Formats: sequence, C-alpha cells, structure tokens
Amino acid sequence: MKKILNAPERAVEDMLRGMELAHGDLIRLLPEQNVVVRADAPVEGKVALVSGGGSGHEPTHGGYVGPGMLDAACAGAVFTSPVPDQMLEATKAVNGGAGVFYVIKNYTGDVMNFEMAGELAEAEGIQTDYVVTNDDVAVEDSEHTSGRRGVAGTVFVHKICGAAADGGKDLAGIKELAERVNANVRSMGMALTSCIPPESGEPIFDIGENEMELGIGIHGERGSERREIGPASEMVDHMMGRILEDTVDYSGSEVAVMVNGMGGTPLMELYVAYASVRDVLERQGIQVYRMPYVGDYMTSLEMAGFSITLLKLDDEMKGYLEAPCNVAAGRPF
Amino acid sequence: MKKILNAPERAVEDMLRGMELAHGDLIRLLPEQNVVVRADAPVEGKVALVSGGGSGHEPTHGGYVGPGMLDAACAGAVFTSPVPDQMLEATKAVNGGAGVFYVIKNYTGDVMNFEMAGELAEAEGIQTDYVVTNDDVAVEDSEHTSGRRGVAGTVFVHKICGAAADGGKDLAGIKELAERVNANVRSMGMALTSCIPPESGEPIFDIGENEMELGIGIHGERGSERREIGPASEMVDHMMGRILEDTVDYSGSEVAVMVNGMGGTPLMELYVAYASVRDVLERQGIQVYRMPYVGDYMTSLEMAGFSITLLKLDDEMKGYLEAPCNVAAGRPF
Repeated sequence: MKKILNAPERAVEDMLRGMELAHGDLIRLLPEQNVVVRADAPVEGKVALVSGGGSGHEPTHGGYVGPGMLDAACAGAVFTSPVPDQMLEATKAVNGGAGVFYVIKNYTGDVMNFEMAGELAEAEGIQTDYVVTNDDVAVEDSEHTSGRRGVAGTVFVHKICGAAADGGKDLAGIKELAERVNANVRSMGMALTSCIPPESGEPIFDIGENEMELGIGIHGERGSERREIGPASEMVDHMMGRILEDTVDYSGSEVAVMVNGMGGTPLMELYVAYASVRDVLERQGIQVYRMPYVGDYMTSLEMAGFSITLLKLDDEMKGYLEAPCNVAAGRPF
Repeated sequence: MKKILNAPERAVEDMLRGMELAHGDLIRLLPEQNVVVRADAPVEGKVALVSGGGSGHEPTHGGYVGPGMLDAACAGAVFTSPVPDQMLEATKAVNGGAGVFYVIKNYTGDVMNFEMAGELAEAEGIQTDYVVTNDDVAVEDSEHTSGRRGVAGTVFVHKICGAAADGGKDLAGIKELAERVNANVRSMGMALTSCIPPESGEPIFDIGENEMELGIGIHGERGSERREIGPASEMVDHMMGRILEDTVDYSGSEVAVMVNGMGGTPLMELYVAYASVRDVLERQGIQVYRMPYVGDYMTSLEMAGFSITLLKLDDEMKGYLEAPCNVAAGRPF
C-alpha cells in the first residue's frame, strides 16, 4: 500500500490535525470528536448547516466548512459513517438558535445516524431538519444504499443552502431549497482504478488493465457496467446520456456543471473530459452558468476516474451559487 | 495505460480546449500555438510575465494565467519544452510596451528555447529579461538539467512577480525581485509511484511495492535516494532536513509553505504531511505566514508523491503574496 500516512488507524486524525493547522482562521476541531466546525461558530440567529460522512472523500466534507457553506462537518472513519454522538456534538457546537439542518448523502449508515442525532438534538431542545441527497443516476440500490446514492451533487446543496442560511433563510426555507436543489441535480461517475482503504490495505475491487467501470459510487461500490476503456468523448457521451435521459428536463436551461476528479486523476484529464461535456451541452442547447467546477470536489481516496454533475438552476439558486464563501476547498491563490 | 483522453497525441490540445471553455473569462488561446494568454492581454504599460514548459504539470502553467499572475503560458508536449516560436508569439501577444519577463524553470530545453525567443523578440524591438528558477535541493545536475532543477517554488515567483508587475514595477525591478524570491526558496520532492506519459504509454521508472524515491524531479527523473516507505513524519523530517540544511537561513523567519501533490496523491495524505511539516517548523521556530498552500500546484501527471517548498519572506514579498489575483488554479468556490 503506497500512501503518505503515519499509521493507517491514525489517517483521519492526522488529516484533521493538518487541516486545522492549515486553515485555523476558518475552522477548528471539536476535541476528541473528529468534527470540523466554523471558527466563529455558533453564529447567532442563523440556521446552521451540518454535513458529514465517511472520510476519504476530501475536500468533502471538512473542506466546505466556513462562512457561506457548512457550519460543521462530521468525519467518520474512511468510508464509514460518523456516529450519532459526533453529529450531536456538532449540532450543539453550531446551534445559533435558528435550528440545525443536516445535509445527508443517501447511504444507509449516514441516514440512520443523522436521524438518530436529530432525535437526540430535539430532545435537548434544538430544532433540526434534513435533506437526503440522491443525485447518482447510475444505480437504484447498492451495497450501502437503498435508493439512489448521494454523490458530488451534494456539494451544490452545501453551497446554495450555505449561502441561503447566511442570507437569513429560516429552517423551513432551507429545507425547501435543499429539496429543490436535490430534485434538479444529477450525477454519474466512472473509474479506471480502484482505491485502497488504509486500514484494509487492499483494493476494493479488481479491474483489468483495459477496463473501466461506469456508474461507480464514491466508495468503490460496483457500477452499472464494465467496459473497455475508450476515448474520453465516448465516456462523456455515455455518462451525459444517462444524466440527460433521467427525470430532470435540462433542455434550454442554464446549469451548474461539475467535472469532479476521484482523487487520482490528473487535472489534464479533467479538462479533456470537460471539453467533451461542453460539446454535449452545446448540442443540447444547454448553457453553463458563470463557470464550471473542474477539479477534485468529492473523491474516493486515490481512485482514478471522474464524475459529471449537472444542476438545473433557477434564479434563486444562481444568486446563492455566486454568493461569496470562504472555505478551505476554495481559497483564492 | 489508464487515462481519460481522446488520443495520446491530442492530449495537450484537448486539455487546452477544455481550459479555455472552462475559464474563457480569464484566458484565451493563441490559435494553433498551444499558448494560453490573459483574456485582456496586452495590458498597456505593464511588464508582461510569460512562463511555460512541458505539459503534464497542471495546473502549471496555464492555470496561473490571469490578473495578478502570468500574462501567458506556453505549453509544450508532455514533459517537453515548448519551442521558441510559441514563446515569441506569446511575447508579442502580451507585450504592453514595458517589456516581457520570462520565468523559466531550470531545464536545459526550456532555458535554451526561452533564451532564443528573447533574442528573436529583441530583434523585433521588444525588451525581454528572465529568471531561471532552481529551487530543488535534491540533486545537482540531472538527466534534463545542468545545475539544480526548477520545481514548485517557481509558483511563488509567478505569484509575487505577477503582483509586482500589476503594481507597476518595471522590468529591472521584476528581475531583481524574481532573483530574490528564487534565492530564498527551496523545495524537495518524493514519489511513491512513477507516471505514464501518454505518448509512450510506459512508466518512466520502475519502483517496488514498498519503495519510495526521495528527491524526485517533476518529470520522473531519478531522485537522490530510494528507500523503503516509512511513516509520513519520517518522509517529512528527511525532506525538511534537506531543505533546512541548504544555503537559505530560515531560522526565526516567516515563510510561505507549499505542500504540493504530484497529481495522484489524495488531499488526505497532503494534510497528513502538512501536519508533520508544521511540527518541524515549530521545532525550528519558523512561522508560517498567512496560510499554507496544500494541494496540487505543480504535478507530474498521475504520479503519487509530494513536494515541500519553503520561501523565506521579506515584507515586500508578503505584500505581493497576499495581493488579489484571479487565475484558474485559484478560483474561489
């Protein structure tokens, strides 16, 4: 196993320490909790946004904590849900009296644990609500999920609802907005290689030297189809086809686009893929709003591959998308 | 070879097309030249900064073109110097009448070709000057270089001199500043894996499953030493030791720090490494100025590994380091 770690069982703690040392002006850690919170939390009178999930998806989730996005992120072990206690501590640390909203990717453990944390928080007098994101068009149900998986489209929920919360929207309004973003966002991913979780030291799946897996999840779950590696434009055509034939009608719309690297993919290849994404959008008369997001946003350790996310925007979403934010994953140079 | 490309021989062109489609508000391409220039070039009365080199190091170089950094970047084939004609066209496109300054990483082909371009430009009445960066402490001379190699520290030259040029500094002043940054910046890298250039389709070097290469260059040139993979803290101690025992006296100083991923390294591992870098700096009484740079800044395709760069700052550099800029490699979320 080729990794830059001190010890596999300390990977998450060491990473979070590095994050806090690097971005101490934006974030701090709750002691002994593996929870990243905004340095200035709680923000009085604002709905607080909390997300989280297994580690290994960096910059998701801690990289999105800061003004204009999340108030807290709970880090589980690699590819493992955080526990309700972490979520409860996060909730208490960021509660500013206007309620706490959970952004949950649809994985069975995450959903169960956030629901439990919400009940515990309500018992302590903190109002909570949540959205379960499920933007992945590739598969219904999988090893870790009942229904569709929540993947990179979740980052748009963080951004848009984070800006709305900063702008003073109340808990019910945030929930409505989060549901609306989730209803209009679709993603699909592919992988050229597996990744190796630090504690097992073994690849999650085997894949041949000329093979790729289409419709992969972010934990190495098997995708919808295995094929021989072809040109980037064919990969993109297939993935975009699956997204466009799904239930969101993108025709004539303006979209936010993300071409997301899985962790081991060079930026060169993401730009090559983006050029093909634009070709498809052009043919469909779909406009990219403002700028695309090309880079590593929700990864799977060192997996090589990428995902495409399309969010159909309305005017309210556009305003929140371009609102300023200040998070580790998007610091200006 | 597992890559997201249309064809190996079109990798650079397709990538640049994707970049231009993604960041057309900041940059444009010179037709048929594989040269990225600021969208608003030339800027009258400003010294123009031009850099470039082989492709495969993204976001270097095109990702640093924009207000506050480079005016143009010349993209060679993968790991191959651009040619003097490209550099000359870049020079003419960005010349605003105050001279053109070349930031050249010390590789034999790059230096030779930029020198030739400078002569051609002077013959056309454009004043030019240049710096050759050589921040890599790992080796003297190598396959592609006489003297030390220019690596990730070069990005600080782009940022600081780019801000200075925006602020109105003249060509002689930019040269003095660039030499000063180069004299105070040191880097060292390591790799866990090789990378595979698209056109050859073969790894540049073989390395055992438990081995790492210390002192690696950014083109897969052999490093100074091969060792068994140990804990991240040991890797960092070794690399920081080499940097600190070199000719820059960092004691008691404030530094800019970069922990740079080589392309295939997950962000998790870069944060783990950064925590150890901070431990070493703490022991030495060296302060990190403002914020560190942890991410992929100068890569080697999909190579797994990282480099550490330390720049000893003076007050003028600090001001230019924190000046605003707007480039593809550092867009806020």
